Amino acid sequence: MGHVTYYSQKTLHIEMKGRGSRDITSQIESLVTSSGIDIGMCHVFIQHTSASLMVCENADPDVRVDLETFMSNLIPDGDPMFVHIDEGSDDMPAHIRSVLTQTEVTLPISQSRLELGIWQGVYLWEHRHHAHTRKIVVTIHGQSSK
Amino acid sequence: MGHVTYYSQKTLHIEMKGRGSRDITSQIESLVTSSGIDIGMCHVFIQHTSASLMVCENADPDVRVDLETFMSNLIPDGDPMFVHIDEGSDDMPAHIRSVLTQTEVTLPISQSRLELGIWQGVYLWEHRHHAHTRKIVVTIHGQSSK
Amino acid sequence: MGHVTYYSQKTLHIEMKGRGSRDITSQIESLVTSSGIDIGMCHVFIQHTSASLMVCENADPDVRVDLETFMSNLIPDGDPMFVHIDEGSDDMPAHIRSVLTQTEVTLPISQSRLELGIWQGVYLWEHRHHAHTRKIVVTIHGQSSK
Repeated sequence: MGHVTYYSQKTLHIEMKGRGSRDITSQIESLVTSSGIDIGMCHVFIQHTSASLMVCENADPDVRVDLETFMSNLIPDGDPMFVHIDEGSDDMPAHIRSVLTQTEVTLPISQSRLELGIWQGVYLWEHRHHAHTRKIVVTIHGQSSK
Repeated sequence: MGHVTYYSQKTLHIEMKGRGSRDITSQIESLVTSSGIDIGMCHVFIQHTSASLMVCENADPDVRVDLETFMSNLIPDGDPMFVHIDEGSDDMPAHIRSVLTQTEVTLPISQSRLELGIWQGVYLWEHRHHAHTRKIVVTIHGQSSK
Repeated sequence: MGHVTYYSQKTLHIEMKGRGSRDITSQIESLVTSSGIDIGMCHVFIQHTSASLMVCENADPDVRVDLETFMSNLIPDGDPMFVHIDEGSDDMPAHIRSVLTQTEVTLPISQSRLELGIWQGVYLWEHRHHAHTRKIVVTIHGQSSK
């Protein structure tokens, strides 16, 4: 039928200044745009266990303020229940936040674009207080009519 | 080896009457059945951030009653800690429930069927109290021997 | 370009002695190594709703001790709020832990290896107190230059 199957992979390096979330949709989308894929998948994988990914509402920044408040209340830094404390009072909470959210997300591709809902963005969520450069492996695959 | 790689994509529109979960396994499975795929993946993506997906026990409806109770206790509607409140007292809890569960799930395909466990179903979980029509993008890919 | 698209699928049977988590990275990696894939995906799916998967820090076992403590506090066995209690006081907590963590994870493959971060491992997390044999479907696909 003249279809070609396509796979490609790139690693993004994203600097985070400390705890908080950042929209990385456009950086992912730009990898998708150049692929020429008609139907396919975009897989986003963070190579860390104290930062994570989420698909979240992208209109009102207060949504992510409230998410931060919720997580800080649910998993307080320095909670005396934790025994893994050598790397700081925010380290074990960071691992738990990572486990409760996403290490990887797969997004649909249609016509060389991410097929997201209007109000959806992809966020990197840093859970440590110190600055970190986070590595994200993006793998794209699909079918091109070329 | 006579193998063909196959990609296809469809959008489902599912009406939800308000907060609660609904089994959508058969609607997904019917897309898989017609694919002719021997080995592959079925990716299910919800284009919203106040409704989500989960793979859950499908035998006793009380499991989902208890999940609802648990989530309502964990993230109370109208909690005064939230600042994103313009869209209603259930809106921020809906976003948090979405982040704590799944925006997308990938399911294995074997012999043109979803390779689920006996007690597993795929559920759309509406987190808002009002009725909504939710859009779900299903992307199927794999290898067919035809 | 001399590229071949490859799909394969295998089921692992893993014995768990009761609640707790176990590193299954090497068992997954050994399926990837023999694939000959240059760029691709490894999908890991657990066919159960009272055990789950997570990508977690693999250096200090105390991280998983603390995760267990956190989950046991968040979702106490035998909590009187639950109505689904016929299968034991740990059954409904197991379903909730499953919903809050992962039923499936997709991992990137590069050069016939899992492209994980240095401190990442893939864990099967048993949430029931009794011993169970858990089935995990591993589907690998990608592009090989052979």
